[in-house]
Amino acid sequence: MGDFSAQRSQQIRKRLDELLPESNSGISSVHEAMRYACLGEGKMVRPTLCLLVHEAAGNPNPALCLDAACAVEMVHCSSLILDDLPSMDDANLRRGQNTTHRQFGVDTAILASVGLLNLAFKVVASCKEGSADARLQIITILNSAIGSDGLIAGQEIDLALFKENEPATDIDTVNWLKTGILFASAAEIGSVAAGASPDVRQAVHRFAGHIGGAFQTIDDLIDKTESVAITGKDANKDDGKTTLVRSAGINQSKLAARRQIEQAFDELSKCNMDSTAIEAYVGKMFSRYIDD
Amino acid sequence: MGDFSAQRSQQIRKRLDELLPESNSGISSVHEAMRYACLGEGKMVRPTLCLLVHEAAGNPNPALCLDAACAVEMVHCSSLILDDLPSMDDANLRRGQNTTHRQFGVDTAILASVGLLNLAFKVVASCKEGSADARLQIITILNSAIGSDGLIAGQEIDLALFKENEPATDIDTVNWLKTGILFASAAEIGSVAAGASPDVRQAVHRFAGHIGGAFQTIDDLIDKTESVAITGKDANKDDGKTTLVRSAGINQSKLAARRQIEQAFDELSKCNMDSTAIEAYVGKMFSRYIDD
Repeated sequence: MGDFSAQRSQQIRKRLDELLPESNSGISSVHEAMRYACLGEGKMVRPTLCLLVHEAAGNPNPALCLDAACAVEMVHCSSLILDDLPSMDDANLRRGQNTTHRQFGVDTAILASVGLLNLAFKVVASCKEGSADARLQIITILNSAIGSDGLIAGQEIDLALFKENEPATDIDTVNWLKTGILFASAAEIGSVAAGASPDVRQAVHRFAGHIGGAFQTIDDLIDKTESVAITGKDANKDDGKTTLVRSAGINQSKLAARRQIEQAFDELSKCNMDSTAIEAYVGKMFSRYIDD
Repeated sequence: MGDFSAQRSQQIRKRLDELLPESNSGISSVHEAMRYACLGEGKMVRPTLCLLVHEAAGNPNPALCLDAACAVEMVHCSSLILDDLPSMDDANLRRGQNTTHRQFGVDTAILASVGLLNLAFKVVASCKEGSADARLQIITILNSAIGSDGLIAGQEIDLALFKENEPATDIDTVNWLKTGILFASAAEIGSVAAGASPDVRQAVHRFAGHIGGAFQTIDDLIDKTESVAITGKDANKDDGKTTLVRSAGINQSKLAARRQIEQAFDELSKCNMDSTAIEAYVGKMFSRYIDD
């Protein structure tokens, strides 16, 4: 199982390395920052889910799905660069290394973030495999994940919560916008690359949305309970923010995550796919934190 | 002629108004900032060129072309927001109003810039008119205009020139990256929406690239010679930067712009289109500044 997910992660990292512009070409510092932000110690959870769903659906367009999975990771890393900026979370550490703006300066970091977003769309639009319609559908799914109902909204609301220290009314919404929707989109993209029916697409979307919710809850738990050596991020960065862990406590959070994983597997069972590998991957991802 | 270009500009503004998210919906401050950055006193030169080329080529897909033209304007406004940021040009005024970050704060401005970029791709990907292939080609042209060989590169090189006050070696490159390529892309997109041949696409691309070069030269001239009331921008913001006006003087700059417009019309004449309206529009745009 460790080997199994490590293999996917390696495959994605190798393809990202090919798709990202070389750091000694053209505008070298932006290129270097794009590579730095994408090729660090990320767990590649979103693109791995994308690949696993596509494989469970028969793996008909592996090259399209791999490029689309890389696009999802680029979108994710692009959003992390912005989240960490001085005018946003003002973070110093991410994935055990300096945040991109600490390493390259704010202006280069912003350009790298925009460069990654642009490259994500380019990779899908110019992929040689898959129908034009499938590629447009994947682009539209990414649009929804990024836009005013996705990551951008999550960031705005998150900032507002942080600034005003508001009550814990909107944790589910923020978790959905900041994490759930890109998980959901990643998995849905895997099913679209495989030509799945609208029903399967929607079930897969809901499945991974629940996984994203559980992931965010566990991430907040880790932030609260683990050392910087484990998280690779600044400690206590969430202290001013409303998270489930902060408002409901550690045990309630574990329960909530467990419930979300059950709901996720319920959705997955509607998809008529051999979901053994997906369930094993998800189980492994959470076992350390939610098992008794 | 005034009416003629005003009519195109009005058509684009009306469609932008429809495509942009309402400012009282969802994440209202980012939405408001997106509208603020796009619906100000912009001249709509790039999208107008896009429409005029498409009309000259027979106007077969007006809805696709109008949406793609709006996407070009969104990309342009997205890049202006970033150019003006404190970590970049640190500008206070743009188009006669506060820059977006002065009006809404840096974080909201950055999110609005990313939101506009995302919306540009969405508008093209989800347009109901035009073949899937044409829409993907338009997206790919936008990718090239934005990416490491386009606006992002222009911004990085521009910053480097500004910081190090380097000699005037790279003016043409910077003008191409910061202005020429989006002009060229706008016009090329108009021809792609009309299903033009690769030869025509390329000639149209070169035509508008020259127009963009002339436009940038004249823009630098205006920055140098006109009052803030005319430019609507901070005065002397280019003083640390290398521009043609700064290195070669006003008269040489006018000559260079005139030469670029001639080269542009040479390219246009290869396209086998009725280019009367395009030539009239371009002539009008520059007449005040380059005629003796």
